Amino acid sequence: MSRLITIDDIADIAAGAAVLGCGGGGDPYVGALMTQQTMRGAPPVPLVAAADVPDDALVVAIAGIGAPPVLIEKIANGSESELALRHLEKHLGRRADYLMSAEVGGLNSLYPLQVAAKVGLPVVDADGMGRAFPKLEMTSFHIFGVPVTPMALVNERGDLMLMQTTSDQQAEHFVKHLAVGMGGIMSSAGFAQSGADVKRAAVPGTLSICQDVGRALREARERRRDPFAALLAAMRATDYYRHAHLIFEGKVVDVERRITGRWSMGQARIEGPAGVLELAVQNELLVARINGRTAAIVPDLLAVLDEDTAQAITAESLRYGQRVRVLAASVPPIMRSEAALRVWGPQAFGIDEPFVPIETLVQRHAA
Amino acid sequence: MSRLITIDDIADIAAGAAVLGCGGGGDPYVGALMTQQTMRGAPPVPLVAAADVPDDALVVAIAGIGAPPVLIEKIANGSESELALRHLEKHLGRRADYLMSAEVGGLNSLYPLQVAAKVGLPVVDADGMGRAFPKLEMTSFHIFGVPVTPMALVNERGDLMLMQTTSDQQAEHFVKHLAVGMGGIMSSAGFAQSGADVKRAAVPGTLSICQDVGRALREARERRRDPFAALLAAMRATDYYRHAHLIFEGKVVDVERRITGRWSMGQARIEGPAGVLELAVQNELLVARINGRTAAIVPDLLAVLDEDTAQAITAESLRYGQRVRVLAASVPPIMRSEAALRVWGPQAFGIDEPFVPIETLVQRHAA
Repeated sequence: MSRLITIDDIADIAAGAAVLGCGGGGDPYVGALMTQQTMRGAPPVPLVAAADVPDDALVVAIAGIGAPPVLIEKIANGSESELALRHLEKHLGRRADYLMSAEVGGLNSLYPLQVAAKVGLPVVDADGMGRAFPKLEMTSFHIFGVPVTPMALVNERGDLMLMQTTSDQQAEHFVKHLAVGMGGIMSSAGFAQSGADVKRAAVPGTLSICQDVGRALREARERRRDPFAALLAAMRATDYYRHAHLIFEGKVVDVERRITGRWSMGQARIEGPAGVLELAVQNELLVARINGRTAAIVPDLLAVLDEDTAQAITAESLRYGQRVRVLAASVPPIMRSEAALRVWGPQAFGIDEPFVPIETLVQRHAA
Repeated sequence: MSRLITIDDIADIAAGAAVLGCGGGGDPYVGALMTQQTMRGAPPVPLVAAADVPDDALVVAIAGIGAPPVLIEKIANGSESELALRHLEKHLGRRADYLMSAEVGGLNSLYPLQVAAKVGLPVVDADGMGRAFPKLEMTSFHIFGVPVTPMALVNERGDLMLMQTTSDQQAEHFVKHLAVGMGGIMSSAGFAQSGADVKRAAVPGTLSICQDVGRALREARERRRDPFAALLAAMRATDYYRHAHLIFEGKVVDVERRITGRWSMGQARIEGPAGVLELAVQNELLVARINGRTAAIVPDLLAVLDEDTAQAITAESLRYGQRVRVLAASVPPIMRSEAALRVWGPQAFGIDEPFVPIETLVQRHAA
């Protein structure tokens, strides 16, 4: 199954990717502008279902890596990802047949489409996270044995690193140091894998889900319907995110943020009729606590939505005074397995409490 | 002109390289042990004069990069440099014809010989510094337009970076961050150049000078002659270092040292009959001040010598109570040109005073 992505699809994908990005993955608005500019005049990009990728095809994942807020001040020059792709291909001695998202959340949903439009390649409708996560080894690729490296990393000046590490954790370790040297954010091409690997190790259909979620938001806006109801309906219609709930509403009263180089770390506080909701951030929203009780926790999805439009607000755009609702949603069972939780569960972020599914937490709070 | 380097030559080269290393470049004792182990049983390594390298040959420089004291605690696994060489060759799509030192001082005089013995290549009798310096762009290669990158960097685990930067300063910038990620020290293959480049951009004959200086020290010891007189005579017999002087003697009374990741920074204080000598260190000894007056300054050579043996003591081996003499020597006129001083003169290290040749300073102090 394959369809064509045109410039007109980008805004919807960006809006959906903002929700799935859990506040991270880079500002999809910036990503949409970059992608639309590249697609203007270029042929549409074929989007191919993971199941339809030939087993022996070479698939490369494209992603921005670093602290998302940096993107707002340090604009990409637009050719970083292509340069990264070309250097990885040179190292592999083979041209890529397909591009793919490493993380479907935020800007990183759009980067592969942008590069694909530039170089004339199809994109696989899949990713390695089903959302956004802040570390390289936090991918389904890692869980199923597809290594991060070789990975090419490029900054806006055109400086290049080709990284080949002894483990995925070492790759993350180096990226932490390189991100600082590269000015906080960089573009990457990596997770090189065969079509057979994609079928085994990727989360399929996620780019289409982004588009469906974004389309639901846009259509509700156009038809003057409740965008929150439309968003919940769209999420609940998916296999992955079907336990979707609005868990809080209120006003942002405090935001603390610091860029450590590799990550944007912080906290936010929202006050509303039901009390206080506190968010912990490491690029992405990791955990929400309402009046001190855990209300949603990684890897389940968390998104802060604008009260009027239901558009997701990235962590770097959270500001005092914003009136918001907070969305939480399940991730697919495979992302909640014991092996998966070891990679991206609460403990992987230093949060000393067990993962509890959002559907359980919602019942508990209702009780 | 070409001759063979055998295991029996290594100790002399190491002893001379310790003097030319200005306290840095990595402990040549460690380098000698590693090189001797590799050479045991291997055929001798041809050492070829720079003038005799064919213009179209590919020459690659091998060097350890990082904070030298780390080597004492984190021993190399012995195959890093070969791995770096192989990855650089893969990137260049061509095998190296010759290896060379990037810096002839310290351990880095021996690394190319060690790798050459392993892989069966000849070594060029030349380097890019005529001593040791703490930054990648501080080479004659840089001054004459031979870039640092592409450069392969490998740590003791076998993690690999292939770095291709937009400038030599950017290469140094990244190495600063990578050195931390790689545990303080790493092995490199870079400065890839043609034989024609070597003739134009390298400092010729420096490995032989190391050996001559080391041999003079050994023979004086064997014949129970004054090793200091022998050392001065050997230095003065070279074109490069002929203004060689013992500028101070005394006891080490204070050493301050901190590893910043990329570098070992510090100060040392020596007290003697003539007063106090203070040394500033950034991997290498940068400047010596006697009773507050500058007595020798970078890029001229500085070495702290053991009072009994005249063996050079590396900066990381300086200890309270050592009785020492301090040697200073000229570098060749080409290393003191205005263009060269911009790269490795006092200002390049943040020292706010002009370069004054050692022969001038010695006269000034005598006056």
